[in-house]
Amino acid sequence: MLTFTLQKTRSESLYVQLSRLIRDAILSGKVRPGEKLPSKRAFAKNLGISVITVENAYAKLLDEGFIISQPKSGYFAGDLISITALKNTKAPVHRHQESAGNDLVADLTSSANEVSCFPFSVWSSIMRRELRADRKALLQNPPAGGALALRQAIASHLMDFHGIEVEPSQIVVGPGTEYLCALIVRLLGRQLVYAVEDPGYPQTLRVYKDQGVKVARARLDENGVSAIALDKVRADVAHVSPSHNFPSGTVMPPSRRYELLGWAAAKEGRYIIEDDYDSEFRLSGKPLSTLKSVDALGRVIYMNTFTKTLASTVRISYMVLPPEISDRFALMSAGSSCAVSTFEQYTLARFISQGSFETHLNRMRRLCLKKRDVFMDLIKKSPLGKAAEVSGQNAGLHFLLKLKTGDDDEALRQRAISYGIKIAPLSWYCGEKDPAQKHVFAISYSSVRIEDLSDVVGLLCKALLD
Amino acid sequence: MLTFTLQKTRSESLYVQLSRLIRDAILSGKVRPGEKLPSKRAFAKNLGISVITVENAYAKLLDEGFIISQPKSGYFAGDLISITALKNTKAPVHRHQESAGNDLVADLTSSANEVSCFPFSVWSSIMRRELRADRKALLQNPPAGGALALRQAIASHLMDFHGIEVEPSQIVVGPGTEYLCALIVRLLGRQLVYAVEDPGYPQTLRVYKDQGVKVARARLDENGVSAIALDKVRADVAHVSPSHNFPSGTVMPPSRRYELLGWAAAKEGRYIIEDDYDSEFRLSGKPLSTLKSVDALGRVIYMNTFTKTLASTVRISYMVLPPEISDRFALMSAGSSCAVSTFEQYTLARFISQGSFETHLNRMRRLCLKKRDVFMDLIKKSPLGKAAEVSGQNAGLHFLLKLKTGDDDEALRQRAISYGIKIAPLSWYCGEKDPAQKHVFAISYSSVRIEDLSDVVGLLCKALLD
Repeated sequence: MLTFTLQKTRSESLYVQLSRLIRDAILSGKVRPGEKLPSKRAFAKNLGISVITVENAYAKLLDEGFIISQPKSGYFAGDLISITALKNTKAPVHRHQESAGNDLVADLTSSANEVSCFPFSVWSSIMRRELRADRKALLQNPPAGGALALRQAIASHLMDFHGIEVEPSQIVVGPGTEYLCALIVRLLGRQLVYAVEDPGYPQTLRVYKDQGVKVARARLDENGVSAIALDKVRADVAHVSPSHNFPSGTVMPPSRRYELLGWAAAKEGRYIIEDDYDSEFRLSGKPLSTLKSVDALGRVIYMNTFTKTLASTVRISYMVLPPEISDRFALMSAGSSCAVSTFEQYTLARFISQGSFETHLNRMRRLCLKKRDVFMDLIKKSPLGKAAEVSGQNAGLHFLLKLKTGDDDEALRQRAISYGIKIAPLSWYCGEKDPAQKHVFAISYSSVRIEDLSDVVGLLCKALLD
Repeated sequence: MLTFTLQKTRSESLYVQLSRLIRDAILSGKVRPGEKLPSKRAFAKNLGISVITVENAYAKLLDEGFIISQPKSGYFAGDLISITALKNTKAPVHRHQESAGNDLVADLTSSANEVSCFPFSVWSSIMRRELRADRKALLQNPPAGGALALRQAIASHLMDFHGIEVEPSQIVVGPGTEYLCALIVRLLGRQLVYAVEDPGYPQTLRVYKDQGVKVARARLDENGVSAIALDKVRADVAHVSPSHNFPSGTVMPPSRRYELLGWAAAKEGRYIIEDDYDSEFRLSGKPLSTLKSVDALGRVIYMNTFTKTLASTVRISYMVLPPEISDRFALMSAGSSCAVSTFEQYTLARFISQGSFETHLNRMRRLCLKKRDVFMDLIKKSPLGKAAEVSGQNAGLHFLLKLKTGDDDEALRQRAISYGIKIAPLSWYCGEKDPAQKHVFAISYSSVRIEDLSDVVGLLCKALLD
């Protein structure tokens, strides 16, 4: 249980003191967003104070928006980004307040790109041109799957970049992969078991849970998810990332890919969702064929997103539906609107078709490759070189760092935070707990500038090894 | 059953002829998108041709994208907007192809605004400024409920325009009301009965059905939905439009509004979704207080959208959550992203806060009022003046036209289409059928230019009265 040493002072009453200590614990990350706080009674007993004092402290924090109360289940730490900044609406608010943790040196849990990477001037000039060009088209609702111009541009990109041949009509554009996953549940059905990778993105697990469907976690082996793992959890639909699992970095070999296609073919109604979210950033080696490109039976739904390659705040993702599901979508979506603004759809379409996206990707890949090499080199030359092992660094923009340490992962994480570095233990991404996950951290570095890497490694050494 | 007279000719084989006739029926609207086509066997028997001929015709139409096949349930007319244009990917495609029905003189079923109404130059200049201003903010994920700047701008607008006082933290921004309804289902629960208005927008009904929850249609009386109607269908959540029901135009009087609040208060877990979609366009009379502004118990979720006031293709809608549900949202959405691009969120925030939105609304209201008056005057002076009755014209951008005729509604609709005017019979929007719905058409005129109204009325007279 959360515990504090309270001191009786003249200037600060006990409940104010307690509320301040809890608030600091939330702000420092010691208490995580959504984490349950001790019950009033237990907390009071533990701290040796009255229940009323705890009650008053909670009331103050509730009022300030640092915690929230759920009827019948108690008090929880709020999501700082969502709540804190917003409560303070009397004072003029600067945008910067919106994001917690601006005092961080580096957030190694974020998959956002560096600000300088976004091609602002090209984007802005295309947007301006589009706003002048065909105004009627901009104000006309495109098909529910997205504007034709964008779907054609994506189809060409898929052909050129991944060798996947698809009809634009099979492509469905939406504002983020969460949205598309929810759509998939409506297309495939709510009675099915949806399996996600373990370890994997907690968001993927959650988006299916939010849809009220049965979700299972299928354990990865060194080649990714196997048919056996899927059968074990009685999966009907498997959401996988063959090109690069997060956070393990596992790349699924061809034999396993065929095994998965075989799994899907073995029973009517089985589907694979191929989440190819950062295949564009594969850093070394020849890219393997996607499941989609060898899917003869129409059991693979390919999914990719511009939120990783362009900016997480430009909400455009897409999926490629097999013909049968594509027909189902056409029927189901008659009369509904595509949830992405046409202004941005046409801008992105032009951005891709005039070659700017390819230029951008090449620039990003060079940058990431360099960043990865510098990062690896710095680690190797630092004390971490001997005290830790790196794996999974060849595919996307993250790797695993396994420490030779006896320290507790949460203690290490908090020490890193105190040095301004946010890292996440591997266990955060795992359903089934395993001693092998201990002392392993997932390091995402897309948001860190190359010139800051040396400081970051220095601070990591201090935090994790001292 | 769909029936045609086929003629044996030299130039055209029977199956080609049949496919052409079916295609024309789909293009003319005689067969509606999603409508089931006759089974091959029954159709062949009915037309006196072989099953193979029908099969070949269907295969050709499938191939051309005019119809789609659903395993085990048969063939259906495709959604032209979604499918037809997309199939033709070999030829260079112009954007105009995306929208079917460009040969229409007027679409009186569309709630889109005229193209000339969108404030392109102001929007474009704000967008440009925003793309230069705070790039870091543009690339930083805002809270799941939306960028603070936009939520503050919306809160001010709600205060100024509707007298509703809300905290920005209660506002949740999303890409369209369909998205927000899906979110509400996640927030309130899947075990509840969601009631929508009868008559009402079919899309509202569908969005709840798509979520896999129980949906009921609550019948309107002359004052809107009543507590009795809600109890009759055992509703837990009522999705209503007190300020203006579509298509009836019913405005809910204050007594009924309090009755609904009483209904919500009578049982734990009951909520009202107040869909205020076109209250900004109320054309005459003093606006009534929203349910939200008199909701002392926190049982009203207020919902509104910029897709009606600005453009249906700029996908930004919002809702205001009661405090308890707002806390639930903060917990549930920790770690997920707002589905609207920050670029457009900040542009809209500036558009509202610098007063351009108000200017735009005033301009739109003046235009709509004038359009409504001209439309009413033209109808009065035309033969329709005596042959029809107009109702519900005082609230938003649509009214009901009740014809004194013995003709079949569908025949009238098709005759109107042949004159280039798309209209929808009231019965399309009704669950429970009633003889009083006969010969009544819902007329939406926001997309028609004032200078075209005279032609539109002339064509309506020819189509409906000749």
